[in-house]
Amino acid sequence: MPLLHQPAELINSLREQNPLVMCIQNYVAMDFSANVLLAAGASPAMVNAVEEAEGFTKISSALSINVGTALTPHWIKAMELAASTAHDCGKPWVLDPVGCGATAHRNEQCAMLMERRPTVVRGNASEIMALANACKVEVVGGGSAGGGKGVDSTAGSEEALPAGIALAKRFKCVIAISGAVDIITDGSTKVLIRNGQEILTKITAAGCSLSTLCAAYCAVCNSALDAVTAAFLHFCIASDMTAEMVEVKGPGTHRVHLIDNLYNLSSAALADRAKFEVHEL
Amino acid sequence: MPLLHQPAELINSLREQNPLVMCIQNYVAMDFSANVLLAAGASPAMVNAVEEAEGFTKISSALSINVGTALTPHWIKAMELAASTAHDCGKPWVLDPVGCGATAHRNEQCAMLMERRPTVVRGNASEIMALANACKVEVVGGGSAGGGKGVDSTAGSEEALPAGIALAKRFKCVIAISGAVDIITDGSTKVLIRNGQEILTKITAAGCSLSTLCAAYCAVCNSALDAVTAAFLHFCIASDMTAEMVEVKGPGTHRVHLIDNLYNLSSAALADRAKFEVHEL
Amino acid sequence: MPLLHQPAELINSLREQNPLVMCIQNYVAMDFSANVLLAAGASPAMVNAVEEAEGFTKISSALSINVGTALTPHWIKAMELAASTAHDCGKPWVLDPVGCGATAHRNEQCAMLMERRPTVVRGNASEIMALANACKVEVVGGGSAGGGKGVDSTAGSEEALPAGIALAKRFKCVIAISGAVDIITDGSTKVLIRNGQEILTKITAAGCSLSTLCAAYCAVCNSALDAVTAAFLHFCIASDMTAEMVEVKGPGTHRVHLIDNLYNLSSAALADRAKFEVHEL
Repeated sequence: MPLLHQPAELINSLREQNPLVMCIQNYVAMDFSANVLLAAGASPAMVNAVEEAEGFTKISSALSINVGTALTPHWIKAMELAASTAHDCGKPWVLDPVGCGATAHRNEQCAMLMERRPTVVRGNASEIMALANACKVEVVGGGSAGGGKGVDSTAGSEEALPAGIALAKRFKCVIAISGAVDIITDGSTKVLIRNGQEILTKITAAGCSLSTLCAAYCAVCNSALDAVTAAFLHFCIASDMTAEMVEVKGPGTHRVHLIDNLYNLSSAALADRAKFEVHEL
Repeated sequence: MPLLHQPAELINSLREQNPLVMCIQNYVAMDFSANVLLAAGASPAMVNAVEEAEGFTKISSALSINVGTALTPHWIKAMELAASTAHDCGKPWVLDPVGCGATAHRNEQCAMLMERRPTVVRGNASEIMALANACKVEVVGGGSAGGGKGVDSTAGSEEALPAGIALAKRFKCVIAISGAVDIITDGSTKVLIRNGQEILTKITAAGCSLSTLCAAYCAVCNSALDAVTAAFLHFCIASDMTAEMVEVKGPGTHRVHLIDNLYNLSSAALADRAKFEVHEL
Repeated sequence: MPLLHQPAELINSLREQNPLVMCIQNYVAMDFSANVLLAAGASPAMVNAVEEAEGFTKISSALSINVGTALTPHWIKAMELAASTAHDCGKPWVLDPVGCGATAHRNEQCAMLMERRPTVVRGNASEIMALANACKVEVVGGGSAGGGKGVDSTAGSEEALPAGIALAKRFKCVIAISGAVDIITDGSTKVLIRNGQEILTKITAAGCSLSTLCAAYCAVCNSALDAVTAAFLHFCIASDMTAEMVEVKGPGTHRVHLIDNLYNLSSAALADRAKFEVHEL
């Protein structure tokens, strides 16, 4: 079963349209994800004041919200307002429920944001399972209670697939689960991605910036499943190319050359290197 | 018409005096601009609490304010207090009106800060035009309403020159407009800078950090026009040197080696590579 | 006099146990210190909301607090709550009194945090001397009033040793003073470290991230003196290795390759390169 929009076409669309992506991003990831978006072909705007949440969302083509580092009342209000604005204006928005499962407060806020109907949720396996619990979604075929260690996952992506499917069906959104194999599902189809390098888990904000890239692709493609697949391939293939470079010897150099490769990756190389499968559920 | 202070002398002054520069900087740019200042020869202090705005400004040699990511009441109060303190103490201060034009709230706060009389304003063409509108300054010779796309410019620097001149005259400050050709004006003279690389637009916080470098140079030279010219040349020539390196292949490596070249650029190489012209208006 | 726990053993413990370290970190240093912790072998969580300070501290193995950029009432409350929680739960916690001495407000908050009994305090000489003053600790054998320039030191580490000893005895903690020679003391013993490169003073957040690494090592070793010694050696030897690389030409490349070397440094190479002495006081 093929996708309707080929990733190799979408990377060109992204660069041609250079969409403005508003990000409510955590402090740690702001710098890196702004550079990821610029290198990939989008135009980032990092904003977090309540006073600007509505106005900036309206002039943007997509929104990305990461519950991040500062779940204070002011930030929560900005997230809620931006998400509601995006939903009401029909603009795509992506939720990154980072660290979901770590505290009761975080679980509550993530569940609140799910009610504002994100187009896409991207997290690791522990976060997706914890999110299903937080939203009191019934998960068919089990799955643990999530948990994780702080913001790091303690489970594989396959383990979180039932939770992902349940969330996708309940909220009519796309759920993307990062892991050794990445899984993207809309509840009726799953895409498996076999590109990407384990060293990404040693680079802070890798996942957080991938979420913002998902938002950028949603701005140029109205199928969220296809958009997220293209975003993962762009990011993960750039990481594969980086790992092959002789000058890359650890997470410091990987991070730097990853930005170059996001910028330089051609549409043809993306098509050539993409390792993904589409399955009906 | 020559400048009174040669850029090649000012780079030595900066390194000898190593001035303390207080920065109220946006979250995205804090890390990069602190590294830019350290590499160039200054000592950065990033502070944003109202409780310290006055005290830290008083012990600093210059102040840089970027309206950035968090235009909340607390931050605005800190900006206002720091700017007023700098003005009252006769210390130079630089305003970066990033994203001016994007929301009405942002326009209002930028106009408010202009009343605290910055020594220098640095922005892209869209921001400078939007700032002139926000300040209700009459622009002779036209110029559009600004606008821009989020924090990125949609106009060339020449297009914003009338707005820059009008602002410089009204507020008795220096206006610096970043672009393919950079323009710096005090309302009666304009300096054109032809160094610098387009890839800088793909590196987040490049402009924001250049603004802090302008503040650093203002701390060691009492002609703001000359100080800003030196800051632009230091930054842009370091970028030119970076683009010539074989190991630089995109925005990720450019950003890293730019820091090295800010650090290593000699006074002689700066004099040799500088491409600028001074014109009476 | 040897240490009870060898640094070469502790680096293995760190990587095996991969402790979760909660950090209340300043904005400038969040990204870099998260990458330092990941590369070294720990799992960072950057959190600063009051609402999560207690919950996140309880699930973490150690806590690191940097008074940093935003000494606002909200942040202060989160710091106080996290520190008290760590103390009550018997978890190690590290204080980085960055910029202590710069404002009266900063001195007060640092003194307040000392009452929550940190396991370790790491700072530069100016900060440690200012902290002793702020805490009204009687310093035997003199030492100036501290002061510093913003967040940079104006004194050598030896000059701050009397203040460090006085603080260590009064608060029953370990004091680590960064400088050309680093000094670590618990009040009865001092460890001198002769690894590390001066260029680290030109890289923002180098000291701030070292403080978080001290917290990580405290999570795997119950002797704070030994833990901090291992943290300094890991960080400083990685810096020494970086300085020997032909591709490293300034602070930009140093910072990137430092991360790689933190990741790649073997236990054997650490033992081989370590230059430290232990003296009874």
